[in-house]
Order: sequence, then structure tokens, then C-alpha cells
Amino acid sequence: MSVSEMWAPAVAREPKIVSAALRDLAAAFGNRLVTSQAVREQHGHTTTWIPNQPPDAVVFPQSTADVQQVVGICLKHNMPIIPFGTGTSLEGHVNAPQGGVSIDFRDMNRVLAVHAEDLDCVIEPGITRKQINEHLRDQGLFFPIDPGADASLGGMAATRASGTNAVRYGTMKDNVLSMKVVLANGEVMTTARRAKKSSSGYDLTRLMIGSEGTLGIITELTLKLYGIPEAISAGVCPFPSVEAACNATILTIQSGIPVARIELLDALQVKASNAYSKLTLPETPLLLMEFHGSESGVAEQAERFGEIAKDLGGGPFEWATKAEERTRLWQARHDAYWAQRGLRPGSQPLATDVCVPISRLAECVTESQADADEAGLLAPIVGHVGDGNFHIGLLIDVNDAGELKKAESFLERLAERALRMEGTCTGEHGVGQGKIKYLNAEHGPVTLAVMRSIKQALDPHNIMNPGKMLPAG
Amino acid sequence: MSVSEMWAPAVAREPKIVSAALRDLAAAFGNRLVTSQAVREQHGHTTTWIPNQPPDAVVFPQSTADVQQVVGICLKHNMPIIPFGTGTSLEGHVNAPQGGVSIDFRDMNRVLAVHAEDLDCVIEPGITRKQINEHLRDQGLFFPIDPGADASLGGMAATRASGTNAVRYGTMKDNVLSMKVVLANGEVMTTARRAKKSSSGYDLTRLMIGSEGTLGIITELTLKLYGIPEAISAGVCPFPSVEAACNATILTIQSGIPVARIELLDALQVKASNAYSKLTLPETPLLLMEFHGSESGVAEQAERFGEIAKDLGGGPFEWATKAEERTRLWQARHDAYWAQRGLRPGSQPLATDVCVPISRLAECVTESQADADEAGLLAPIVGHVGDGNFHIGLLIDVNDAGELKKAESFLERLAERALRMEGTCTGEHGVGQGKIKYLNAEHGPVTLAVMRSIKQALDPHNIMNPGKMLPAG
Repeated sequence: MSVSEMWAPAVAREPKIVSAALRDLAAAFGNRLVTSQAVREQHGHTTTWIPNQPPDAVVFPQSTADVQQVVGICLKHNMPIIPFGTGTSLEGHVNAPQGGVSIDFRDMNRVLAVHAEDLDCVIEPGITRKQINEHLRDQGLFFPIDPGADASLGGMAATRASGTNAVRYGTMKDNVLSMKVVLANGEVMTTARRAKKSSSGYDLTRLMIGSEGTLGIITELTLKLYGIPEAISAGVCPFPSVEAACNATILTIQSGIPVARIELLDALQVKASNAYSKLTLPETPLLLMEFHGSESGVAEQAERFGEIAKDLGGGPFEWATKAEERTRLWQARHDAYWAQRGLRPGSQPLATDVCVPISRLAECVTESQADADEAGLLAPIVGHVGDGNFHIGLLIDVNDAGELKKAESFLERLAERALRMEGTCTGEHGVGQGKIKYLNAEHGPVTLAVMRSIKQALDPHNIMNPGKMLPAG
Repeated sequence: MSVSEMWAPAVAREPKIVSAALRDLAAAFGNRLVTSQAVREQHGHTTTWIPNQPPDAVVFPQSTADVQQVVGICLKHNMPIIPFGTGTSLEGHVNAPQGGVSIDFRDMNRVLAVHAEDLDCVIEPGITRKQINEHLRDQGLFFPIDPGADASLGGMAATRASGTNAVRYGTMKDNVLSMKVVLANGEVMTTARRAKKSSSGYDLTRLMIGSEGTLGIITELTLKLYGIPEAISAGVCPFPSVEAACNATILTIQSGIPVARIELLDALQVKASNAYSKLTLPETPLLLMEFHGSESGVAEQAERFGEIAKDLGGGPFEWATKAEERTRLWQARHDAYWAQRGLRPGSQPLATDVCVPISRLAECVTESQADADEAGLLAPIVGHVGDGNFHIGLLIDVNDAGELKKAESFLERLAERALRMEGTCTGEHGVGQGKIKYLNAEHGPVTLAVMRSIKQALDPHNIMNPGKMLPAG
């Protein structure tokens, strides 16, 4: 399959149908329905090389009832519906290959309740990760999932996002207690109650998390919260090899050190980050760490990690004792994407991720580095190494067909490599359009048939984000 | 609805169909198919007052292929299939109200692989919690989920079990990476790969966990493991009221103290446990605690908890510094059920559980105590208070129709109370037959319709543990 076949081709709907649907939507939503070319294009895919496929219109709901009304109209006209948060997804999730209506949750960004005693809050899907944490800070609470981008919580749930904190706090699947979801028939489902756990019925919360808008539209979320740790400390530790860094990670986790973040940067990424973030880190593989706990707890964690690192030939383990230093280090990690661009001005990083059992991580990273070298591709790597998850940013000139072809082959080999090592084609970016082609190899026909039968049961007319996640049967 | 209507009535299948199915099974399994009355009754429900409804036969598979063969034969004859682990479930999960074949996983109890570096293992479903931990101990690893009974891991996954460790380690939903499942059409599905996380496709692992055998039969599990903590310490702390004990729990969790277990015993339960386990605990509400970590870590946790308890009028917080003391305390907690029986010799504890947001826990427990007093019922309470989950053991004479009726009304009020407080009718026991009647009130018609449509999609002939979990549509 060639690059251009990696996503579903754009299929125009009959203009008559589209205009009838838009008439109904305009009658219901007035100027909260927008059809200008510029706004439509902003609501297609914009973050990577996957082509922009704009929807026919964008609607800005203000309530669950509004979303139900959109779904009702779309169902009547058989129009696709594509939920939209902040548009930061990487695999074409928000594209409209078959046209349809993008539902932008910009105006549904309220905090409906904070239950400090229960460590949970109820929010609308449009609120972003930074906004919710801003809101919670005064109460000494925070929501830990941090995918890097300031994504919306609805989008993060829909793509089963995770990020740097996942090694300690889990992913979105572990941190949502319940959701309201508008189904393809326009009805509203509540997936669970607010209790911390339950054995009552099928786990519809987890079924919806990671379903990428293909089973329903999230209009409310109840999130688990955590107390802001008394102490946070960070540090950075160079290693002679990726393998040594991975082994230090394995030992750290086996020892029960409750590390909050443990990120691998390969030598090429360190070089890029030094240049971009004006740092002077040693240009070898290194681990960037963060510990959460009590003052003495984080000190003890750091000390024990330092010993492990030393035993494996790593070090010196340098402490960022001051908050500014810590912020600077993590800002550099968050700016990895921009730093990568600096390695080859004018290029665009083709960001991808895979995830393997941690025992195979060093092998997977090292093979991928060698593969990139051989193919003549610049491929800096950053990894959520505690989860076995890593990102490669292939620096290519997207206008050079030859490079694109090389990149495409590399991506296929990367996914195959991860699958061969009992891993997955995506640890946290999701499938969208870009990774549909790997799902058969990853899950096999029986598991995919189960996924399709669930999709068919909940969305028989295939109006919920069609052309995403599931390969054609 | 009366007590006797709480579970599906036994529906006999046509004897001709049953004997044809049994002939096919006997041809395939020889003496691994058992039809004796005694064995069949052992494979119906035996643990509570729910009547025993034995299957038509019991088969003992040795492989996934064996299970596929059973399903193939049952599908051909439209015979129900009921998976069976150790039979310790409490809500009639293993009963055969429509007859059918019980699949006993006694012989499928092997450890297929332990991946110490990845902190996971691959096992067959018949292995029990104690067996797997025995197997892992030498490698310094353990699996934390502990529902009290020495249940099979397959059964624990099927009922989404949790128990005393859940406040720190989560429930079964958080600790299974992947499963092999034989579907109603006889095909084998692998729900996920062995990577720690993935954003690839619907979360079929979580869909199967807690599905109580109604969507498929688990034949293999990949479990998350943990390093055995360097230090474990335990203690017990009396409180002037249930409310004070609950508030101490809330503050402990808010403060980020990573308590491993925090269990509430009400005064009546303490009295029962003192008598049964020969202890001299103060007969007030009390918290039983366990901390996991480094030597200095557990000491710090304990100290901080002690301060919180004192601020709330609790204490003195007494330490069980020796392993024997700790074991004795937790053995008493595990023996709560037997201790309850001692409160009224000849009675049978009717064990039930509900779960509410922790902010409502004290209110829910206190109201339930008053309700029991008013109804003249002996109702000791133990609770996984960190999760808002608690158990009541109603001590009744099951042969006294008047008492049964009183108990029945009490259970209904308890479930309604939990639901009114945004809780669930079961935190960890599951639905089975006993709690079907509460599902409509808990989930409402839209959510139940979604559950039914998934059941219909995956088990169109309703042969997978029929008459469990889902109320008739």
C-alpha cells in the first residue's frame, strides 16, 4: 500500500443531501453553524503530512442536547459526524474523508463539579488539559495525563491518550470514571456511576475510551484527580547506550520505585534539544526523570535510582533542585518536536509511535536507529520508556516523493518490528486514518470481526467518524 | 419482586436435545465429561442462599482447543455454557438456570510464562490467586488482587474482582494486559498485545473483564505483576465513629499517602472478630491498615497516617511490627465471614456489597446500620473504605420465611441507598443472578440497550451463561 493509500480517499456526498442537511442544521444553530472554507479546513487534519480533508460544515454545540440535535439531523440525512477537540491528533482522526459535520467542542468547556473529597471532577469535553489543571490548582488537586499538546479532555479520552506521566498514573483508560455519550441514534448513554469501582455490567467507559468517535460522541466526563504531591524533583542521567538506559528503567520499576516520569532521549534528540533549548546536556542516550512524593520520599527515590544508574554504567545523575531548572528540563522535553525541526530546517517531522514490552525496547529502538541510518533518514527518538512506548520524528521534505517513499517504507518496517516484538502499532497516538493498514496484522481477523460487530451494533448506518480506525471488512 | 424472583427460574431443556449434546461431548471428552448428580450440584451455586441450579454436565478441558470444541458442540445443540473456576462467586454466576454445560478450568491451571523484566505473566484461567503468588514468590514478584477467597484468575477477571488491595493496585480491570477468549461462534480472540499500553482499536480486554461469561470464555490471561515491596507494615486504629474513620481515609488518600490496604470494621464486626480470632481489639469502628514501600517509606506513611487519625479523634494507632502479628490481623480480616457466623450460631451470613463515592460512605454505612437495627437484623459491616466499597453480612435463618422477607427488603433499600448516593449496586461481587433486578435502576434503559446490543452482536444465540447480568429487554 502506498503513502497515498494510507487513509481513506475523499468521497464527495451528493450535493443535494449535503445542502438539505446544512439547511436543517442552520435552522437549528444559526450562526453556530459555519461553512466557510477557512474554518472547514481548520477542522480537517492539519498536524502531519496526512492530507487535509475538510468537513462540509462545523457546528459549535453548547450542550448535550445540542449534540443530540446535530446527531438527529445527521442521522436523517445520513451525514457523517466527526467530533473535534483542539485538532492536535496526529493520525487524521478529525478528517472528513466522506464529508459530513465536524462538532467543535470549543464552547463546551465548563467544569461542572469538583468533588475534592472523592478526588474526581465532572467536566465538559472541550476543556483542555492545562485549563482543567489551572482550575484545580487552588484546591491542591491535579489531573495527571499529559500528552504534550494542550489537548481537550474529550479528545484525549477518544484517543486513549497518555504521555509522560503514564508510568505512574496510567493512561486515560485508568483515569475516567464515567462519561455521557451521545449515541448514533441520538440517545444519551451514561457509561457508569461516580463510584470508584463497580462490577455492575459491561465496562462501557473503557469501550468508549479509545474508540475515536466511531461509537458515539463524548459530551461529559468524570475524571479521577490526585492531590498535588508535596514534593516534585527532577533529574537527568546520561547512559553509555540505549540498552543501559532501558535496563536502568526496568530495574527502577522492578524495585518498586514509584517514578512519575522516566523519559528516554536518544543521542540525536539530545543534540537537537541542546541546540533548540540552549542546554548543555551530554550528547549520549539519557533519561529524564521526575519523582513525586514527600520531601524525604523523593530524595530516597532519587538516591535509589542513582545507585541503579551507576551500576549500569550511567551517570552522573544530575539533580534539578530548583523549580526553574526542572521546568526548563521538561520544557525541553515538551519542545522535542520543535527541536527536531531544527536538525534539518525546512523539514517536517513525521511523528509516529509504537509500544513494545519493555524487555524488547532497547532492541526495538536500536534496530530502528540502524534502519534509519541505513535508509539515510534523520530519526531522533524520544520515549516513554517506563511503558515501552517511543516516538520517532522522521525529518523529511514532504515535497520530495523519493523521501516520502523511503519514510513510508521505514514506517512499515517500524510497525512490523513492534508487532514482531509483541508490541502494538501505536502506544498513544491512536489509529485514525494513518494506522488503519496495520490493524489486521496487529489484531488478526477474529478480533477485528468482533470490533466490527460492535461498531455495526452501535452505529448501523456508519455515521460516526466513518473511515477511521477499522479497516474495511 | 420477591426473593424467589431474584434469579432466573430453572428452565429445563428438552431431554432429547440434552442427551444428543451429551453424546457428542462424551465422544469428544470421554471421562472428562461428568454427569453425576453430586458433581453437577457442586458446579451450581453453593455459597449463599441463592438456590442451587446444577448444569446438565461438567466438562474438564485441558486446552483452548478443548474449549473451542465444547463451544462448537453446544452451539450445534443450542446448549448453554457456564464457565466455572472455583465456585466462590456470591451472586449465582455459576448456576445453570436453563441447564447446559459447566466448563470447569481445574485442569487448565498452568503458568505459561513469567516475564520478570516486563512485570507480566501468562497463565491459564484455572490457576488461583494463592497458586500464582506461590509460583512468583521466588522471583520477588506478586499479583496483588485479593478478593479474600482463593478464587481462580479466570473467575476474578470474569467478575471484575478486586478486594483489599484495590485502593493501591486497582481492580482486575487495571491488572490484565490481554486475554484469549473463545467466542460464542467457537473462534479464539486475542484481546490485545503484550505491550503495557496501546491506542490501537477498541478495548476488548476491558469489555471482557466483568462480562461474567456472557460474551465469551477466557482461556488465557496476561497479568501485570509487581515487585514484592521491600517493607510491609500493618496497624490498627480505633475511631469514635464510622464518620471519623471515613474522614481519616479521605484525608489519607488526598494527602497522597500510598496506602496499600485500608479496611473499615464496624463495632459489631470487631466484636465478632475478637470472639472468633481471639483478639482484644477495642470494640469501636476501626481501620486496619497496610503500607508497602521501603523501610523508611512505610515508617513515614504510618507516621503521617497516625497524625491524621489523631486529628480526627482516632487512635491510638497500634503497630503490628512483627510479621506474625500482621498476619494474625489480616487473617482476622479474611475470616470476617466466619466470625460473623459466630455472632448468631446456626445463621448464614447473606453477603452483599455496594460501593459509593467515598464522600458518601459514612452516611451510607450509618444509614444502613440504623436500617438494620430498625429491621431487627444483625448486620456486621466490613469495608474497602478507600474505594467507598463495603460488605454487609446479614445474619439470618434462611429457613425462616419472615426473616428472609425482612432481609430481602433490607437488600433492596441498601441498593437503592447506594444508587441514590451516585454509587453502584455492586462494587466487586458482580451481578450474576442476584443483582439483575437493580441494573435498570443503576444504568437506565439507554445504557442497558447498549449492553444488550453488544451481547446480541457477540452471542446471537444466547448460549453464553444465559440468565446472568442483563435483565430481559
